Amino acid sequence: MAEIAALAGVSKPTVSKVMNGQPGVAAATRERVERVIAERGYVRHSAARALSAGRAGSVNLVVKEIDNAYFSEIIRGVEETLERAGLSMVLTATHDEARRHRRWLARVVEHGTDGAILVLPDEHFAHLGELRRHGVPVALVDDRGESPPDVPSVGATNFAGGFAATEHLLSLGHRRIAMISGPAFKSTRERAAGYRTALQEAGIQPEPLLEKPGGFVAETGHGATRELLRLPDPPTAIFTGNDLQAMGVYRALYEAGLRAPDDVSVVGFDDLPFARLLTPALTTVRQPVREMGALATRMLLRVIAGEKLESARVELATSLIVRESSAPPRP
Amino acid sequence: MAEIAALAGVSKPTVSKVMNGQPGVAAATRERVERVIAERGYVRHSAARALSAGRAGSVNLVVKEIDNAYFSEIIRGVEETLERAGLSMVLTATHDEARRHRRWLARVVEHGTDGAILVLPDEHFAHLGELRRHGVPVALVDDRGESPPDVPSVGATNFAGGFAATEHLLSLGHRRIAMISGPAFKSTRERAAGYRTALQEAGIQPEPLLEKPGGFVAETGHGATRELLRLPDPPTAIFTGNDLQAMGVYRALYEAGLRAPDDVSVVGFDDLPFARLLTPALTTVRQPVREMGALATRMLLRVIAGEKLESARVELATSLIVRESSAPPRP
Repeated sequence: MAEIAALAGVSKPTVSKVMNGQPGVAAATRERVERVIAERGYVRHSAARALSAGRAGSVNLVVKEIDNAYFSEIIRGVEETLERAGLSMVLTATHDEARRHRRWLARVVEHGTDGAILVLPDEHFAHLGELRRHGVPVALVDDRGESPPDVPSVGATNFAGGFAATEHLLSLGHRRIAMISGPAFKSTRERAAGYRTALQEAGIQPEPLLEKPGGFVAETGHGATRELLRLPDPPTAIFTGNDLQAMGVYRALYEAGLRAPDDVSVVGFDDLPFARLLTPALTTVRQPVREMGALATRMLLRVIAGEKLESARVELATSLIVRESSAPPRP
Repeated sequence: MAEIAALAGVSKPTVSKVMNGQPGVAAATRERVERVIAERGYVRHSAARALSAGRAGSVNLVVKEIDNAYFSEIIRGVEETLERAGLSMVLTATHDEARRHRRWLARVVEHGTDGAILVLPDEHFAHLGELRRHGVPVALVDDRGESPPDVPSVGATNFAGGFAATEHLLSLGHRRIAMISGPAFKSTRERAAGYRTALQEAGIQPEPLLEKPGGFVAETGHGATRELLRLPDPPTAIFTGNDLQAMGVYRALYEAGLRAPDDVSVVGFDDLPFARLLTPALTTVRQPVREMGALATRMLLRVIAGEKLESARVELATSLIVRESSAPPRP
């Protein structure tokens, strides 16, 4: 209100009158105020709410889980960006459960919000349309690949990341490189495509036996590695879909009396904070998860402010971080 | 309101009348509504506020950091408990910075909240009194030992945990047991006291050289272990103040060509989710961090509902989880 009044060069009561459609404002003044309101991206409805009850002052962040370093990094990036903008972060974990989605939506509608950021929005999230109907601006992080193209969305260059990880292992001399993969998200499929493409460009035919799908958890890395080690011709290197799976690979190697990188090289994906703390420190593809959360937040704030985004879809670059877990194969 | 109406089998206007003490409701009906209200833990004050202005519908959680598994677990416990109560969680990270505390307080005062949960409230947090002046109910997790005794607070039995870790190592035959300690919080001091007491009860005089203070980060575990390994008579076992430090111990051992538990036994503290995923899987003292967050939330909700707590200070039990990183010393 004060901001609009200042920008339009009028008093706050005048802004209030214009917003509420009350008489007693000269046509030119009314037009000026309306223009400022339009430029700042306020719509009458939310402005009216702001007048009566105070802007929500908060943005909702919806993640699947909280106690997972990938989501923690995003949460941190979002919180820091909102904090600088003077906004609070309302955080909700859905555990991919439809009823939690519904209850979240009910709370948002009841108590209001300035916007919502959804991370890896899952199949239950048919609510995008409903949020828009309620006038809630939305931004996405790591879209699973099913949302409308005009919704602001931040991801990473997953294909390039998968390619770089595989190319690194090839350059060390590995020829039998396995990949442990994650759920069938867009990002996962792209990582696997990068892996296969790098193999093919090196003249190696990808083998279905060396690709192990599963969940983004350590248990998948553990189970898949046990199976890989039992192959007649086991891989000398394993590229995992995320860092947690790599912890599971370490465990399976340990149980088999093997070590990375002496016996098997391991490359992860994400570069979450724990990756550099592992022994051996994990070679991994860094995706700037925190920055992805921060950028999605900045895009959302611009949409809330009524600005037009140059591009609704942004991918941040991945980069290979070489540490201790990758080395040439035994001769 | 709708819930109370449904449970009492009356209309919403009737509930409203009862809540506001208006006439026109039969005594039996009034009694039924009041009973439902009492059973559901609503008190007239908050109900009245809810009627007039819309309850905030949210509770503020203030932590130091977000991307740290200790805080993630607490955040998760708080979020799950609030979600079940139909409330949203507003999450703020302070990074122990005074200006972030101030800005948080300003946002809380401007936008309102139903209550606040502070984790490890630090020296900047002179705001407890101010929160109370604004009528904001507060609960604490892991109080650093400086807050008024009537503020609801949840901790863990840290002394017992330190004692159990040390006793475990003694029972394996270790006599030279080092402790890597954390910042001078109440919880840390209690863990160290448990360590020293267990040594003394076994007839061993605690040696200042074997106690290494530092931060609750992997780097402290790493640096302290390097120093311990350089002692003329190095320890055969190391008890760390938290699990992150234990990761640093692993690294220092790895760099020195040593292994846990073959060369040095390691026991951590917290049992954060990653502890069981490490290789070797970490023997550690479990403190139920998530439950601590959940309990602090339940206590806060009772205070908000106007209930009286039997005890403002609660400590949840710690327990020793023996995994792979502890074994008898080399003969």
